Amino acid sequence: MTPEEFRKAGREVIDWIADYYERVGEFPVMSQVAPGDIRSKLPDNPPHEGEAFGDVMRDIEDIILPGISHWQSPNFYAFFPANASGPAILGDLLSSGLGVNGMLWATSPACTELETHIMDWLVKMLDLPKKFLSSSNGGGVIHDTASSATLCALLAGRERATNYGSNKSGLKSELTVYTSNQAHSSLEKAVKIAGLGKDNLRLIEVDETFAMKSETLSAAIEEDLKNGKKPAFVCATSGTTSSTAFDPLPQIGKICKEKNIWLHVDAAMTGTAALCPEFRWVHEGLEMADSYCFNPHKWMLTNFDCDAFFVSNRKALLTTLSILPEYLKNKPSKSDAVIDYRDWQIPLGRRFRALKLWFVIRHYGIKGLKAHVRKGVELGQLFKSFVEKDDRFEIMAPAPLNLVCFRAKTSDEINEAILLKLNSSGKMYLTHTKLNNKYTLRLCVGSPLTEQSNIESTWHRITETYENEK
Amino acid sequence: MTPEEFRKAGREVIDWIADYYERVGEFPVMSQVAPGDIRSKLPDNPPHEGEAFGDVMRDIEDIILPGISHWQSPNFYAFFPANASGPAILGDLLSSGLGVNGMLWATSPACTELETHIMDWLVKMLDLPKKFLSSSNGGGVIHDTASSATLCALLAGRERATNYGSNKSGLKSELTVYTSNQAHSSLEKAVKIAGLGKDNLRLIEVDETFAMKSETLSAAIEEDLKNGKKPAFVCATSGTTSSTAFDPLPQIGKICKEKNIWLHVDAAMTGTAALCPEFRWVHEGLEMADSYCFNPHKWMLTNFDCDAFFVSNRKALLTTLSILPEYLKNKPSKSDAVIDYRDWQIPLGRRFRALKLWFVIRHYGIKGLKAHVRKGVELGQLFKSFVEKDDRFEIMAPAPLNLVCFRAKTSDEINEAILLKLNSSGKMYLTHTKLNNKYTLRLCVGSPLTEQSNIESTWHRITETYENEK
Repeated sequence: MTPEEFRKAGREVIDWIADYYERVGEFPVMSQVAPGDIRSKLPDNPPHEGEAFGDVMRDIEDIILPGISHWQSPNFYAFFPANASGPAILGDLLSSGLGVNGMLWATSPACTELETHIMDWLVKMLDLPKKFLSSSNGGGVIHDTASSATLCALLAGRERATNYGSNKSGLKSELTVYTSNQAHSSLEKAVKIAGLGKDNLRLIEVDETFAMKSETLSAAIEEDLKNGKKPAFVCATSGTTSSTAFDPLPQIGKICKEKNIWLHVDAAMTGTAALCPEFRWVHEGLEMADSYCFNPHKWMLTNFDCDAFFVSNRKALLTTLSILPEYLKNKPSKSDAVIDYRDWQIPLGRRFRALKLWFVIRHYGIKGLKAHVRKGVELGQLFKSFVEKDDRFEIMAPAPLNLVCFRAKTSDEINEAILLKLNSSGKMYLTHTKLNNKYTLRLCVGSPLTEQSNIESTWHRITETYENEK
Repeated sequence: MTPEEFRKAGREVIDWIADYYERVGEFPVMSQVAPGDIRSKLPDNPPHEGEAFGDVMRDIEDIILPGISHWQSPNFYAFFPANASGPAILGDLLSSGLGVNGMLWATSPACTELETHIMDWLVKMLDLPKKFLSSSNGGGVIHDTASSATLCALLAGRERATNYGSNKSGLKSELTVYTSNQAHSSLEKAVKIAGLGKDNLRLIEVDETFAMKSETLSAAIEEDLKNGKKPAFVCATSGTTSSTAFDPLPQIGKICKEKNIWLHVDAAMTGTAALCPEFRWVHEGLEMADSYCFNPHKWMLTNFDCDAFFVSNRKALLTTLSILPEYLKNKPSKSDAVIDYRDWQIPLGRRFRALKLWFVIRHYGIKGLKAHVRKGVELGQLFKSFVEKDDRFEIMAPAPLNLVCFRAKTSDEINEAILLKLNSSGKMYLTHTKLNNKYTLRLCVGSPLTEQSNIESTWHRITETYENEK
């Protein structure tokens, strides 16, 4: 494709995306296709000769679009917000265009240095502990997801607990890991990957707000110590996926400090809230953490993938993940004056992801990003007030921010039927969870396109569907 | 950013990228900045108010560009080819624009189904074993990198070797892992991550072509068995990063089959060559492999990140990586009629990466992609012929494709000085390796912009630099 052809095709794609955002509210939010529908429209064999770009774009419209669940729709309330935005998309486009691999400082110094710089900006923007700044012993790095960040934190914790010996000789002693029974499933996955075994993962029970009980954590640790296990890692959550519950970091931090256990704090979904001083409580006690992550790709208008991962002692991470084959050796790396981010993550290669975050922060400014968070919380609270005022429904968990867990005061089966009906109407996309063993609907606001009118008509449809299904 | 503002800014970025490709040959290939140069130009604090898009783009030109090592330059011969291309960039742009997360089939059926379909196309295009087709017991998935794919293969091998018990109870027995001493460092990293310990990784010696000696592999396995270890995993390489060496898959496969050891084949750099029938020998013996990966983001005109990972028995992988929290449960997943790719990888979330690969295959067609590979090999062979004809230099390893390992017949120090001089000239970017303990220069061709004239002038500069440094 020549640069001239690229200009033409590129404009076509840009226009298509602009048009998409103008009509994204009109599509069925959750794709209504059946399994196999999309594949059945694709040719069995790849083309021998190249095809015209216009044909490809036509298939985007005709074949792909019906198979899209529209995460950018104003009526997308499922899982978690996953905001894209113009500046993020264009920052990512530049990253694709430059096509650099930032595995080493030397392979594109700007890729590494902009990332370090923006991670420091985030520390300031969210008022995170200063130990996460690159000028301290810690520092930040962009990962694809919180799953990967949590795995790296767990690995560093595993190594610290075994005097950095598991990397060398393999796991010998039985390490134990702790998190609440409301924590994200990625920790269970990480525990398996790291070879620790699910049996050594303790799912600590929660209080009535779905926050980890620190006394139970403490007791579990003591019990394990008594049985000859080695407690190595605690993952606390600030804002669980299930219901935005907040584990008590000050108490958990104190326990971890006393027992020399690595404390990782996962704020994937709600960390962004700390942009606003009135929501900084989400990080209360964070100064005790060894590592922390949150996802700008969730609520900070940055398209997937972009997880911000911080450690207070980068040496622990680097000792855990460093490798140095001959073909990656180079003068700047030897000098110790630079960061090679390959040693901060699982993969070797890396995209220039800092660009999109930089574009977002500069385009919106701190002021614009704060306004975005406040709007999400306001709409979440508006929805909560609708539920609270309606006797047919109940709130199932504290909803201090933009996620509301609720259900109709009836059976699990009817609540599930309501969810299926709502999602197959195409008018909204909600997901569910279980709280106190009850089937619970989740509504999470975060799209910049969601307005008060969307929340109002969504609530109207929910009550209407309830009346039809009850 | 409104759709109208996005149209305007988007065109600006598209034009910038088109311009970039028109002048990419003019920049110093390896960035010439010193550590800290880029950061020193960035403001200490993020902006409070949003900034104009034009200001951001100006900083791309003034601040970022000097810190870029130009992987897309016609004179980039370092590490491995990392081709971007117009259709790939635009496919990725659409992925950013749609902003969907393909963690589950239900979260965007098209994202999953297009990926499955394209993975099947790749099996046909490269004439891979049919067991890697989704219609068999196996299947393919897009990972970010070969590092991640190799880790997942290792995990599946670990679980198979322990009757899927390590995930549950943690590692109990001592598993051993085998690869050649020329294999990629990602395996060492994976062995550490999986908790197996570097001491249990056997780096098998190689023959004069830098290919693994299968008799030595066999002996090492026997030795480990005698010592009560459990051989679990072999990683063979088809085209090592260091010198494009090819491990003997038929012999290695036979050993693995006999001993029930998981065989993973890493063809990250050279798998793409199998597009051309005359290079299909790179996969000879692949039908014995349990898993396989290659990187379209290396030599198939698809921008990073895009690794194609295949398994012959998807159940082994799924049993290893599945997790199922309540909030991810949904009707299609329960029905077993769909693929949820989150269970095929480390992270939960995933980009719509199949789009860029689809765009590339359709734009170039198989014919165009074959021509691209053939051109790279031709230019690699041309360079090899220059070295062979010159008494001052020697070829250090077989160079059957697009990577040539060579050195001046003089000391390591002088060869290193030549490399530094060439790279700091800005006229080319080469990297090095060590072969037979000798400092060796590597020249790897793969950019679609590289022409015969680039290879000629590159060789001219190399000999000239040698004369100045010797």
